[in-house]
Amino acid sequence: MSLKYAVIGTGALGGFYGGMLAQSGKDVHFLFHNDYEFVKEHGLRVDSVKGDFLLNEVQAYKSTSGMPLCDVVLVCLKTVRNGLLKNLLAPILHKNSVVILIQNGLGIEADLAEEMPTLNIAGGLAFICSNKVGPGHITHLDYGRLNLGSYNLRDEIILKQVCEDFEQSGVPAKYSSNLMLARWEKLVWNIPFNGMTVVLNTTTDRLMANGSTRKLIEDMMLEVVHAANHCGVPLKESFVNKMIEMTDTMKPYAPSMKLDYDYKRPMEIEYIYSHPVVAALESGFDMKKVKMLEQQLRFIQTTY
Amino acid sequence: MSLKYAVIGTGALGGFYGGMLAQSGKDVHFLFHNDYEFVKEHGLRVDSVKGDFLLNEVQAYKSTSGMPLCDVVLVCLKTVRNGLLKNLLAPILHKNSVVILIQNGLGIEADLAEEMPTLNIAGGLAFICSNKVGPGHITHLDYGRLNLGSYNLRDEIILKQVCEDFEQSGVPAKYSSNLMLARWEKLVWNIPFNGMTVVLNTTTDRLMANGSTRKLIEDMMLEVVHAANHCGVPLKESFVNKMIEMTDTMKPYAPSMKLDYDYKRPMEIEYIYSHPVVAALESGFDMKKVKMLEQQLRFIQTTY
Repeated sequence: MSLKYAVIGTGALGGFYGGMLAQSGKDVHFLFHNDYEFVKEHGLRVDSVKGDFLLNEVQAYKSTSGMPLCDVVLVCLKTVRNGLLKNLLAPILHKNSVVILIQNGLGIEADLAEEMPTLNIAGGLAFICSNKVGPGHITHLDYGRLNLGSYNLRDEIILKQVCEDFEQSGVPAKYSSNLMLARWEKLVWNIPFNGMTVVLNTTTDRLMANGSTRKLIEDMMLEVVHAANHCGVPLKESFVNKMIEMTDTMKPYAPSMKLDYDYKRPMEIEYIYSHPVVAALESGFDMKKVKMLEQQLRFIQTTY
Repeated sequence: MSLKYAVIGTGALGGFYGGMLAQSGKDVHFLFHNDYEFVKEHGLRVDSVKGDFLLNEVQAYKSTSGMPLCDVVLVCLKTVRNGLLKNLLAPILHKNSVVILIQNGLGIEADLAEEMPTLNIAGGLAFICSNKVGPGHITHLDYGRLNLGSYNLRDEIILKQVCEDFEQSGVPAKYSSNLMLARWEKLVWNIPFNGMTVVLNTTTDRLMANGSTRKLIEDMMLEVVHAANHCGVPLKESFVNKMIEMTDTMKPYAPSMKLDYDYKRPMEIEYIYSHPVVAALESGFDMKKVKMLEQQLRFIQTTY
């Protein structure tokens, strides 16, 4: 059985992942916001380190009300828009549809499950450097791996099929049996680098080159690992070394929150900072440095 | 016996405090750096909320080698210049001279005592809003109180006489029997507000008006109180409420470190942050938030 896909939010992530699926012949239906007319006329363009392509015949929509029922919904919105999800999803779901939240942070699935208790929910982590550089125009700079895991699926086999579809499309995709572990792992990198590049208005390489911030990044990563452990997630301290080494080999990089800051867009403070801080605190651990970064970011958010 | 005073560093602090003493007839000798020629010609001008004055006949020097031996040396340099002190002080000291370090931070006296083991050292805390606005031109905006305490004086009576001289000159001055308590008290305010106005590029009133940073300021103040307690200094948690209330009634204010940052001058990170952090750590307490602020400031210092 071949799956029918919906992409909710065709930006840096949705444009790339949905574009890769469509390019390899999968049945993908894209929701656009401002770019709808442009894409109808000019198609969706992906300039990728793995090879550029242009999708001429995009199944594009400007509202989900015109979309078919889909088996798999890839949610690639910024989490600051998740308040819209319930209404966006309603027209395209059948009883067995699976919604995959390819978003950063903690507690996203739980919040959606509270709003839509019968929904089949999974989570996805994208390890990718990509940007939307113009209407219907995505550049893919580096990486691209996807990790998918179940939140409340009765049957996880569909996730494995999604992974296969991605693999066939040239996207390395892995099924994770522990979604919470995958989410906390990603937070180990995201928490220090997203916020610190904003607060100090800089890039990852500069934070790593300065002895003081390099130490602070490490300390915050450890704090995230300890928070995960208090929440019952078996992350190891050695994972921090792995992330430090990985970052040392990365090109200078502005994480997504830094781009949001630069373009005066709302930052994803809620799910990347507040939810982990609260979850840790409820498990008896005070993430003092992460909490401080959250407070600094909340101040900055009000100065836009 | 009337005291002969030297002022080392005639800026926002030295210009005001030395100026007030000289204005009331005390014998004060001022060391100038760039402003020497200007002051020789035009005098030293202090525009104060308590009344403006101009000192026409300033006992001004551009080097301490031409100065007389002085009984009391008021050191009003930024601590980033303290490496110069040993050479600056040598020509003006007699056996009983007392050097009063009117500077912010912790460990300043100890560092000087290590360099000059026989020196009579005291410390001073200035509660004042004043700025140098031009050559030989100080504006005094608010407050002005001085707290003086002994570091290693055999006889503290001279400090009491200095307090009297200040009082006679219109400067409220108090003798503190516990210098370390006075220094930690001042750090309770200085640590959060100096660094946070720099990192978030803002003013005290905006930090207080935002719920997130207001909470962070309070948390950091408590961290400083707990650090002091670990160092054996009997500061009370209620002192934090006092500082918060005091700040709520203050005019919008850019602390000295914020001005240093704005004018790309070196920031006093060493004595306001690093020394307290190390002192607390040696007493078994990890100031996690203050340490993080120190690391952020050290990064910013390198981006000038």
